[in-house]
Amino acid sequence: MQTELSKKLGVEHAVFGFTPFPAVAAAITRAGGFGVLGAVRYTAPDDLARDLDWMQEHTEGLPYGLDVVMPAKKVEGAGEAEIEAMIPETHRRFVRETLAKHGVPELAGGEASGWRITGWMEQVARNQLDVAFDYPIKLLANALGSPPADVIERAHDRGVPVAALAGSARHARHHAEAGIDVVVAQGYEAGGHTGEIATMVLVPEVVDAVGPLPVLAAGGIGSGEQIAAGLALGAQGVWLGSLWLTTTEAELHSRALTRKLLAAGSGDTVRSRALTGKPARQLRTEWTDAWDDPAGPGTLPMPLQGLLVAEAVSRIQKYEVEPLLGTPVGQIVGKMTAERSVQDTFDELTRGFERAVDRINRIAGRDAR
Amino acid sequence: MQTELSKKLGVEHAVFGFTPFPAVAAAITRAGGFGVLGAVRYTAPDDLARDLDWMQEHTEGLPYGLDVVMPAKKVEGAGEAEIEAMIPETHRRFVRETLAKHGVPELAGGEASGWRITGWMEQVARNQLDVAFDYPIKLLANALGSPPADVIERAHDRGVPVAALAGSARHARHHAEAGIDVVVAQGYEAGGHTGEIATMVLVPEVVDAVGPLPVLAAGGIGSGEQIAAGLALGAQGVWLGSLWLTTTEAELHSRALTRKLLAAGSGDTVRSRALTGKPARQLRTEWTDAWDDPAGPGTLPMPLQGLLVAEAVSRIQKYEVEPLLGTPVGQIVGKMTAERSVQDTFDELTRGFERAVDRINRIAGRDAR
Repeated sequence: MQTELSKKLGVEHAVFGFTPFPAVAAAITRAGGFGVLGAVRYTAPDDLARDLDWMQEHTEGLPYGLDVVMPAKKVEGAGEAEIEAMIPETHRRFVRETLAKHGVPELAGGEASGWRITGWMEQVARNQLDVAFDYPIKLLANALGSPPADVIERAHDRGVPVAALAGSARHARHHAEAGIDVVVAQGYEAGGHTGEIATMVLVPEVVDAVGPLPVLAAGGIGSGEQIAAGLALGAQGVWLGSLWLTTTEAELHSRALTRKLLAAGSGDTVRSRALTGKPARQLRTEWTDAWDDPAGPGTLPMPLQGLLVAEAVSRIQKYEVEPLLGTPVGQIVGKMTAERSVQDTFDELTRGFERAVDRINRIAGRDAR
Repeated sequence: MQTELSKKLGVEHAVFGFTPFPAVAAAITRAGGFGVLGAVRYTAPDDLARDLDWMQEHTEGLPYGLDVVMPAKKVEGAGEAEIEAMIPETHRRFVRETLAKHGVPELAGGEASGWRITGWMEQVARNQLDVAFDYPIKLLANALGSPPADVIERAHDRGVPVAALAGSARHARHHAEAGIDVVVAQGYEAGGHTGEIATMVLVPEVVDAVGPLPVLAAGGIGSGEQIAAGLALGAQGVWLGSLWLTTTEAELHSRALTRKLLAAGSGDTVRSRALTGKPARQLRTEWTDAWDDPAGPGTLPMPLQGLLVAEAVSRIQKYEVEPLLGTPVGQIVGKMTAERSVQDTFDELTRGFERAVDRINRIAGRDAR
């Protein structure tokens, strides 16, 4: 599965796998794809360095990338404490009451919240980059808009192409003007932050808007047939995130969450502002329902919402409070019904792609070999 | 573009074109596709007979189908007058006030509303079928659930396969159990009634759920590349509705509406209950905004909402009140930027399909001819 972009990056298959887990990212790369490690959870630069060392040892010299979360707009001159102070007491009370209603225990004294919003702050992302550029990363992706101009320049100086996610053609054009090298067109059905335009419509629009810049199709892709569809739409590769959550290498730290993912259908996700303040697709839970309920206080804008719920999310995860337990995931969760290794998952993708190509050739009356 | 289904129906390309306009349906069939005439606007059986006569004369013996709207559940023992009586006065007042705010004129005395909800009632659909079965229609489609068992039986007795739209795998399984022959998997991005699952995810789910029954991919398909994507997902054909609205043969009766469609972007549609009481994708207008506004009275359930707004919609269309003027249309409206004949539109679809197949073969490293 070779495109201009995959050739340029030196990867066997134009399949980009986004994951927060180094073991998964490395296995995707070893399987012939392009593993992209999500850095948002690394608030301490040393932790990132340790895991990138590990990636180096486990990727056999094959290419991989890093995904940071660098907001286009920063909250000027505001540190975490100042931002904390902007959160209304009504919202804090709502968090306490919702947790209490479900009997969610407190974290032990001195125990840190595992999921920190600080990873969403520009300075943290910049510290991550200071570490990352010491490693031979082959792609720097940004999940929130175009990164600042100096970051793009710094990556380019090191010969690292920069990718950014887009939910609309307008958004993609903005990336192109900012000097981005690869646009990830992420459709409505994707896990995490999404717009309202479905992948089927979004990908060709973005290809038209920014061509000849390479575009990756993201959202709704979890099988080889869906990869073929994404490539038929004009993408130079596909970007998959959800699918890896139920691989055996994923470190979800919650069997209950894995079970929920394996049991969920495609209709069991919701685009909700509950997690970050911006619409992000995730498992629908009593937690998202509470935030989306018109009778409740509603969500706060980014980054306040993320800061508000960070400790609560950690507690829900740690104590596996099932009705509230969720994670960002796309509509393909309905097809994630068994735990398998990354290698087996990847092999099934390439087999499914070949089947889809065979099928489309039969329909087109082509004699293909 | 040949699949088992297209061969069975005797059609050159597995492209199904749904349209309320006989001239468009006939032109789709003549171009090598399968035209499907929407019958919902034919409240008088004679009008349908007249247009089916015309279709016969203009389709050169090539196959075409008919689409009726037969609700799965009927309002027991209730005629139009009884249903009218169920509409609250607050809602009637809201219609009057919204129209008055935009200066929408009244219809002239004795002038009938052009868009009648009666086409949505089972008895009207049954009268349409009495007419339709006198013609050699090759497919009977139902836009709302499975038709009643006796209707399926009647079609089968005449050798006419029955298609039904589905927005979820569960819905599709229900159709299969009811004896439906073809399932149209209609994704979130489609115009008209849709669920929340995007085409990219829905089509493979429905194929898995009802295979070996043939599935058509609907929603987000308006180019040959999108056709290739739909077929890669396992569909035996594609079902396109929106694309024909801006063909030169379409009889929209409103230049202002055509202009709005040509100008609209993919983000200018909304899934709203404003038109029928069930979520249907349509142009976003001040009319849909008014119904979707939490400060308003909200919409009524089907069939009340359709009955409530029928006259208003006719007035808005007749007087071309631009801020309120809309129509069901999918997210591909963003690519409908020029009026072209059905033949030219169709030729571009088949060319785009061939381009996409070429491209996917190059990516797969296949030598295809």
